[in-house]
Amino acid sequence: MKNKISRAVIKRLPKYYECLVKLDDKGVERTSSAELGELLGSTASQVRQDFNNFGGFGQQGYGYNVKILLYEIAAIIGADRPYKNIIIGCGNVGTALAKFPGFTEYGYNIAAIFDNDKNKVGTEVGGVLVRDVEELEDYINSHRVDMAYITTPRNVAQALCDRVVKCGVKGIWNFSQIRLEVPENVYVESVHLIEELFRLSYYLNDADEEDDD
Amino acid sequence: MKNKISRAVIKRLPKYYECLVKLDDKGVERTSSAELGELLGSTASQVRQDFNNFGGFGQQGYGYNVKILLYEIAAIIGADRPYKNIIIGCGNVGTALAKFPGFTEYGYNIAAIFDNDKNKVGTEVGGVLVRDVEELEDYINSHRVDMAYITTPRNVAQALCDRVVKCGVKGIWNFSQIRLEVPENVYVESVHLIEELFRLSYYLNDADEEDDD
Repeated sequence: MKNKISRAVIKRLPKYYECLVKLDDKGVERTSSAELGELLGSTASQVRQDFNNFGGFGQQGYGYNVKILLYEIAAIIGADRPYKNIIIGCGNVGTALAKFPGFTEYGYNIAAIFDNDKNKVGTEVGGVLVRDVEELEDYINSHRVDMAYITTPRNVAQALCDRVVKCGVKGIWNFSQIRLEVPENVYVESVHLIEELFRLSYYLNDADEEDDD
Repeated sequence: MKNKISRAVIKRLPKYYECLVKLDDKGVERTSSAELGELLGSTASQVRQDFNNFGGFGQQGYGYNVKILLYEIAAIIGADRPYKNIIIGCGNVGTALAKFPGFTEYGYNIAAIFDNDKNKVGTEVGGVLVRDVEELEDYINSHRVDMAYITTPRNVAQALCDRVVKCGVKGIWNFSQIRLEVPENVYVESVHLIEELFRLSYYLNDADEEDDD
């Protein structure tokens, strides 16, 4: 059933989740489709429609209990369980990811970092040991690894992706700025920075044209 | 007219552009909707439909001249003109952005980096001078600045965004992991890393359930 849920709905779930975390932090106990819609720049009917994909959560006339809804959405998006992830590439991006405090909060833990620079191997970044990339297979075969964040230069990214996939890793977070090829049962989320810049310039140029009118 | 083009189409334009750059690099002179569709994991009819939003580019029976199509899409997304951008925050993310070679290639140049750490001010990162964030307004008022990349911690991001917007910057690239509030005529693209992790876990959990069946 889950497979029929549109990507657009799945993209909105984390936004509901973040919004509910904030309400819960403020001590809010009950919310409504109308309130959630407003907080997310959407509508009450969109919220109801989204939640109906998962069987609906609320109760007519009461709305939603914030903690229960938070728990249910967390379970759907998998934010309720701790993950053990690895970073491949200890450059600026790998370092930024290892040090970013926001991920551990949600259960995304970094268990190891891999690099091919012997000067980095053996040091700690964000409290995590940097290991030799030659140990990659040994490590994955003897530890649980949920996701691999690939932050290496483009020219080695696909080969490293192939290596972790071959060891059974099913989730790849791709910062390498190339499109990675993976088997059907592996999931890749890619941060394509240049595409975001293109979108930004498109909107800026559009605004320029309007100014000319 | 441009305003009526859907966000989905605009998101695909950079993909067409990258694909055409590759064909052009290989010396390919002519392409078709079918070929572009295949390269992008889409269909010929989707490609034609997308291009029709801009009045259509091809010629029946001939297809598309790669160089001309590249030029036309570049003009639409604004990849044909050099941009002068600034980075605010010279931490790991700011440093990674300053050093990333892929942006200059497309005309996105970094003209200055700003930080509040006096030890960093006066040094160079990726060949660009790091300036004191106190000089932010002076700099923007005396130089052309197209976009500001905000890579600071969350707690100061909105205040810095307000400062650059007040000086007239219309494009913000937000790495701060909070939602930035801007006036209607300012465009923000945000890299929400935690949302990508949520999407990845959603798909991983979905796969787990299928395995259980």
